[in-house]
Amino acid sequence: MDYYRRRHDEFLEGLKEFLRIPSVSTAPEHKQDVQRAASFVEKELRGAGLDGVEVIRNGGHPLVYAEWLRAPGKPTLLIYGHYDVQPPDPLDEWISPPFEPAIRDSNIYARGAVDDKGQTYLLLKALEGFLKTSGRLPVNVRVLIEGEEECGGGHIASFVAAHPGRLRADAALICDTEMFAPELPTICVGLRGIVYGELHARGARTDLHSGVYGGAAPNPIQAIAEILSALKDRDGHILIPGFYDRVRPPSPEEREAWSRLPFDERAYLDTEIGASELTGEPDVPVLERVWARPTLEVHGVRGGFIGEGAKTVIPARAVAKLSMRLVADQRPDEAIAQLSAAISECCPRGVTAEFKSLHGAAPSLVDPANEFIQVSAEAMTEVFGNRTVFIRSGGSIPIVGLFQQHLGIPSVMMGFGLPDDNLHAPNEKFHLPNFFRGIEAVARYLELLGER
Amino acid sequence: MDYYRRRHDEFLEGLKEFLRIPSVSTAPEHKQDVQRAASFVEKELRGAGLDGVEVIRNGGHPLVYAEWLRAPGKPTLLIYGHYDVQPPDPLDEWISPPFEPAIRDSNIYARGAVDDKGQTYLLLKALEGFLKTSGRLPVNVRVLIEGEEECGGGHIASFVAAHPGRLRADAALICDTEMFAPELPTICVGLRGIVYGELHARGARTDLHSGVYGGAAPNPIQAIAEILSALKDRDGHILIPGFYDRVRPPSPEEREAWSRLPFDERAYLDTEIGASELTGEPDVPVLERVWARPTLEVHGVRGGFIGEGAKTVIPARAVAKLSMRLVADQRPDEAIAQLSAAISECCPRGVTAEFKSLHGAAPSLVDPANEFIQVSAEAMTEVFGNRTVFIRSGGSIPIVGLFQQHLGIPSVMMGFGLPDDNLHAPNEKFHLPNFFRGIEAVARYLELLGER
Repeated sequence: MDYYRRRHDEFLEGLKEFLRIPSVSTAPEHKQDVQRAASFVEKELRGAGLDGVEVIRNGGHPLVYAEWLRAPGKPTLLIYGHYDVQPPDPLDEWISPPFEPAIRDSNIYARGAVDDKGQTYLLLKALEGFLKTSGRLPVNVRVLIEGEEECGGGHIASFVAAHPGRLRADAALICDTEMFAPELPTICVGLRGIVYGELHARGARTDLHSGVYGGAAPNPIQAIAEILSALKDRDGHILIPGFYDRVRPPSPEEREAWSRLPFDERAYLDTEIGASELTGEPDVPVLERVWARPTLEVHGVRGGFIGEGAKTVIPARAVAKLSMRLVADQRPDEAIAQLSAAISECCPRGVTAEFKSLHGAAPSLVDPANEFIQVSAEAMTEVFGNRTVFIRSGGSIPIVGLFQQHLGIPSVMMGFGLPDDNLHAPNEKFHLPNFFRGIEAVARYLELLGER
Repeated sequence: MDYYRRRHDEFLEGLKEFLRIPSVSTAPEHKQDVQRAASFVEKELRGAGLDGVEVIRNGGHPLVYAEWLRAPGKPTLLIYGHYDVQPPDPLDEWISPPFEPAIRDSNIYARGAVDDKGQTYLLLKALEGFLKTSGRLPVNVRVLIEGEEECGGGHIASFVAAHPGRLRADAALICDTEMFAPELPTICVGLRGIVYGELHARGARTDLHSGVYGGAAPNPIQAIAEILSALKDRDGHILIPGFYDRVRPPSPEEREAWSRLPFDERAYLDTEIGASELTGEPDVPVLERVWARPTLEVHGVRGGFIGEGAKTVIPARAVAKLSMRLVADQRPDEAIAQLSAAISECCPRGVTAEFKSLHGAAPSLVDPANEFIQVSAEAMTEVFGNRTVFIRSGGSIPIVGLFQQHLGIPSVMMGFGLPDDNLHAPNEKFHLPNFFRGIEAVARYLELLGER
């Protein structure tokens, strides 16, 4: 571990360079930046001494692949990360600019700091350490870093489906989740899936004056409001027929383990959420609500007038951005069909409404008794000096489902983020001690796997 | 009338020049354009030969005043118009650019064509005709043209309140309404009032990741949806307690007259609205819905993510633009208080919501038997060759209430727009035959008033 401990400054400078690239994959105007981030990853992989480094371009943002397969008899890990980031808006809420990394109180602040550039970079540094000191890795690895995680990941999905042989491995290693609490090493064994799309509502042929036509003309924004209200009650219970039919409840053991986690609902509300109170299903514990219950969420409404001042328009069209988070054993396609049917059912008269899916991912669950999970827990316990806990995450990492489906392998999710890291929000950060311990934990994991 | 008929081309060129000025009063970036439109009006008034032309600047966009008071013993008309226009968005739905007037099928297309530059300009041309041919007007006039009608009219409101003596008149003449149907001369005797404002909703302290927090964190856009649904049912009935208490129903005579108007609900739906069906209170006739019933309308929702692609954010804040149209004898201040109370009552947990009023105007009703109304009807009947009808308008012209309140005078609303003129919407137009007949009808009105 000496190699790593002597290079904190160097690693930090490298991470900053990575974070300065505004690789916002959903924004067409950042296409070149996304390419630059891919080149950065390519250069790092070559520099670390991996074999077969390749930037794979076949539509969309490129994949970066590398491998090192010279440890016969040893297991093969498929190491995954992503170099793209969420859009940074609202910009005016950032204390320091999103693409000018700034260090305050042992945290590095930037868009992508923890999700996922920082956690991708620590994987690359862990590999570099072995290769630079001994010229070897303890196990075989394939590395696959993508640039479309934040915009649907269409490219990697088709690549994994088309080339299972090129990616053959015994397990995947993913650092894109978070620790349950500071100092508490954590492995995530379950993820929610997602369906993300747009609810398009149309009323009149053209925008209308609300004075002249108000009272008789349909209003698509009001229709969206009525549909959203009809699809979910005020207790967060989703009213889409059949939506909960496949939901698998957590086992009694899992619920019991979650109840022993250091979770303070009041502190969660005050520190992380900062609202007057929590919402959601009152009879479901909070962790279960965000880990093991599906959601229906609205992310924005486009249409009408939102500028300064007043415009008395009844818009002809409006679009709401919606998502459903799904849990095992819900299926994205089925959820889309259920949602679409429910929208048709509750759409008010005078308006036509339609849901258009943009992307989807299945939920996933891994058995904590799996050998790759157990060894990973051992490595983390050793580096952090605390017993590793098993949690789930409410987020969606579609690749986990793809690796399961096409490669038949489980994913080991070692996460080094913290709950207050502001993922997808202004002032995203990565706690630097976790960045450095993350490198060591991954290195130790490879060592332990290689010793078996 | 010869003066007018020989100058159609000249008038049209002048109107185009007026329409080319993007005098969007709600948009700070168009402040200079609004000033240019005021200067245009000033130049026209001077050119027409009026006395005491003055651009009045005391904060906000300027008022333009002029007078001609050399007809002792004759009545005095206060002539009103506005030179500002609505924002032109959505721009991509305009067939020709909003500030490049284009003539197609006897219509002139531009933002402000009918609301209200075209109808303001025709008033000025009617005055010009008398002064250029005889050096006199048949009656006394004061002219007051404002530049804040589309953004709340704060400036003219304080001016009228502060200077009732400078504006002393027997009646006001306003051309800012529409004809009930082509060829059917129309006087509007009632207007809805308005309250326009913003519903601000706040949830978490900062934007949150919907994967991590979805299911437990409050969503202010969902809250706005629930509030909007709680405040109005699907039949358009507003559920704000006390809201309808002061609503004065139309008289049986008025209802009977309305039922004889050439109104085809199917054609109205197909031609003007272009939706699958009408909405609103099913037991109220359509004309009464838009003329004599109050509304609650949402115009847009700001907050969250509305760009291309996907962003899984639970926004910390959202703002909805709302208006209430009010009818006699509702009062804006009371309606604001009722709305605010109802919002507090139905706001979902975890979110705080507050209504902030931006501007308001009282509803107005004038007695059709009033002498100034009757003479105006006679002039219009003569010029159009059809009997003048009395209608109301669902729109709001706040100045009418101000003239009533501070000057104690009724407003004569001779309107020359058509129902399909796309007010406040893309492809606003003015039917040119109505523009020219409007000039003659106003001129004839002045003549008839002068002969009494």
